Amino acid sequence: MSTRIQQLEQTMGQAGLNSLLVTDPKHVYYLTGFASDPHERFLGLLLIRGEEPILIVPALDAEAARAASSVSHIVTHEDTDNPYVILGQQFTSSPGVLGIEKEQLTVSRFELLQQSVAPDQFQDIGPLLRSMRVVKSTDEIARMKHAIHLIEDVLRQGLNHFKIGMTEIELVAELEYFMKKSGAAGPSFDTMVLSGPNTALPHGVPGNRKIGAGDLLMFDMGVYADNYASDITRTFAVGDITPEQTKIYQTVLEANMHGIQAIQPGVTLASVDQAARKVTIDAGYGPYFMHRLGHGLGMDVHEYPSVHGNNQDLVQAGMVFTVEPGIYVPNIGGVRIEDDIYVTENGVEVLTSYPKELTVIG
Amino acid sequence: MSTRIQQLEQTMGQAGLNSLLVTDPKHVYYLTGFASDPHERFLGLLLIRGEEPILIVPALDAEAARAASSVSHIVTHEDTDNPYVILGQQFTSSPGVLGIEKEQLTVSRFELLQQSVAPDQFQDIGPLLRSMRVVKSTDEIARMKHAIHLIEDVLRQGLNHFKIGMTEIELVAELEYFMKKSGAAGPSFDTMVLSGPNTALPHGVPGNRKIGAGDLLMFDMGVYADNYASDITRTFAVGDITPEQTKIYQTVLEANMHGIQAIQPGVTLASVDQAARKVTIDAGYGPYFMHRLGHGLGMDVHEYPSVHGNNQDLVQAGMVFTVEPGIYVPNIGGVRIEDDIYVTENGVEVLTSYPKELTVIG
Repeated sequence: MSTRIQQLEQTMGQAGLNSLLVTDPKHVYYLTGFASDPHERFLGLLLIRGEEPILIVPALDAEAARAASSVSHIVTHEDTDNPYVILGQQFTSSPGVLGIEKEQLTVSRFELLQQSVAPDQFQDIGPLLRSMRVVKSTDEIARMKHAIHLIEDVLRQGLNHFKIGMTEIELVAELEYFMKKSGAAGPSFDTMVLSGPNTALPHGVPGNRKIGAGDLLMFDMGVYADNYASDITRTFAVGDITPEQTKIYQTVLEANMHGIQAIQPGVTLASVDQAARKVTIDAGYGPYFMHRLGHGLGMDVHEYPSVHGNNQDLVQAGMVFTVEPGIYVPNIGGVRIEDDIYVTENGVEVLTSYPKELTVIG
Repeated sequence: MSTRIQQLEQTMGQAGLNSLLVTDPKHVYYLTGFASDPHERFLGLLLIRGEEPILIVPALDAEAARAASSVSHIVTHEDTDNPYVILGQQFTSSPGVLGIEKEQLTVSRFELLQQSVAPDQFQDIGPLLRSMRVVKSTDEIARMKHAIHLIEDVLRQGLNHFKIGMTEIELVAELEYFMKKSGAAGPSFDTMVLSGPNTALPHGVPGNRKIGAGDLLMFDMGVYADNYASDITRTFAVGDITPEQTKIYQTVLEANMHGIQAIQPGVTLASVDQAARKVTIDAGYGPYFMHRLGHGLGMDVHEYPSVHGNNQDLVQAGMVFTVEPGIYVPNIGGVRIEDDIYVTENGVEVLTSYPKELTVIG
């Protein structure tokens, strides 16, 4: 049995749960090692306190589940079965308080569940899983480092192929091609390349604008590899940029570094956001940094925690989140510099290593 | 008010519903014309019989909603509000029987809803919306034709750039680049290019295999444009192929045409599948056609109806679905030919127009 399941069984007791049903495929993977996309079919990991864990999978996934899952008791269902009836049959006594994923389960599925299983009470296990996921294991950090290594390599290759006159979408196509070639599962979100005045649009979409001398050029991208995401932003100068654009760049870089320096276990996430933001405010660009400092990163490209000025939750060792201050001045341009940060017992390890000094290309 | 909302209000009465809450962003778009991705925020269209429809949107989307929505009564909520309380305040009398989207609403959200709104009963409106969506309007057909036109153009451009020795993923990268340039919102699913023995894998993934003479070369791809999806598969011969590969191609082509000929309002979907499948069985390839004949297409790339041999639902005028027989023989190769079909009062209109005759490229 995986140590994660053991850990979950321990917290089950503290949370007053007698049994627990995990239905988010990502969480089934996290707990058992079996990754799958069951589409409309039922997939569930059932934990009953004091009993062996049971993995319930569609029959056509049985072989893959046996090969990958640390849970050896596997129950299958055919398309003609009612999987909730099969689930109900696994209980040899009352389910007691049954934990479910209320943020993942739809009302339709919940009604089917209720027809076959009658616990004393349903309780949401979202917070339990979230608090487990927020602390990354060394194995998870290794996977994230790999996903980051791949995307940094893609950025290098993209810049090697960059020529003045290329359009934003041509560059996106190049980058996504290198992602595919790298062996990554795919982009972890829509690859973003913005240039010139478009860099001032925080929600800009790559278009047919030709990239030319004097442009700021911003890349925000990541890949999924081994089920973990990377996410990096770098901004470059294409030829000569103006003193104001240079000042914006240096301010964002300083904000990025001040944010990172403020991170240590026990401080609030709000204080990290504020440390970075203060740099932009002091430089007179406060109103032009209009988004949060960062977000958690892991199996999802956006996950807990949210790094914003009102989040009084504490930074914990094991967290991974982004630090990505940005300044966006209409008509002048925007700069964002984003790193992925791993919180250690003593401070931080910056997982992204692509240079951040202002670099002229083209 | 849109005619779709009027139509829904009529069926509300027949279904015994007093009020109705639409929460799937796709359905809000379908009914109001306002397309948005609210992420974690609440978005809902509230219909109360005999009253004006109300669209409840996050405050930051208010302007976009006012510009796009046919519903003029717009209520906004800030991130600090409880949107379910605001929803509850819209009822001036008891909600009676309240229709909700049980396949879309999570248990978490349903619990929040229950805290603010106390109807006599909750009833699922999934079937109601599904039966509306299955009959496409002329406007929807026009959008789908556009999405199909774009992907057929992408296929033409991809073939123009094809050279022997390219890998599958190089070709995918080219095609996705042309999709981006075409103005499409993006691929409607993972673009699939398979070659040689890989074509025999119905769930194959494009890889680094170099495409060479003697290969079958299969493309399965589509785009989203104006919120509607296209989906097409064509298979080509790279240089000379064997007589057996040619026979497989001709059998699939005949199955495709027989399937299409079998379509008319009033016949069962099962009979359409069977008409195509019979051709493959008669040619001795029955066991190598191991998937359903097709699927509905529209705002989703897979939607109702499912065209398989056990579906006794009837073909209706206004339906759009794919006809995509395939034969996959290990080591010899696979062929699939997929068209998008619009069912008219008298028969069918084949929306895809890319030639289907066996074509040699390279």
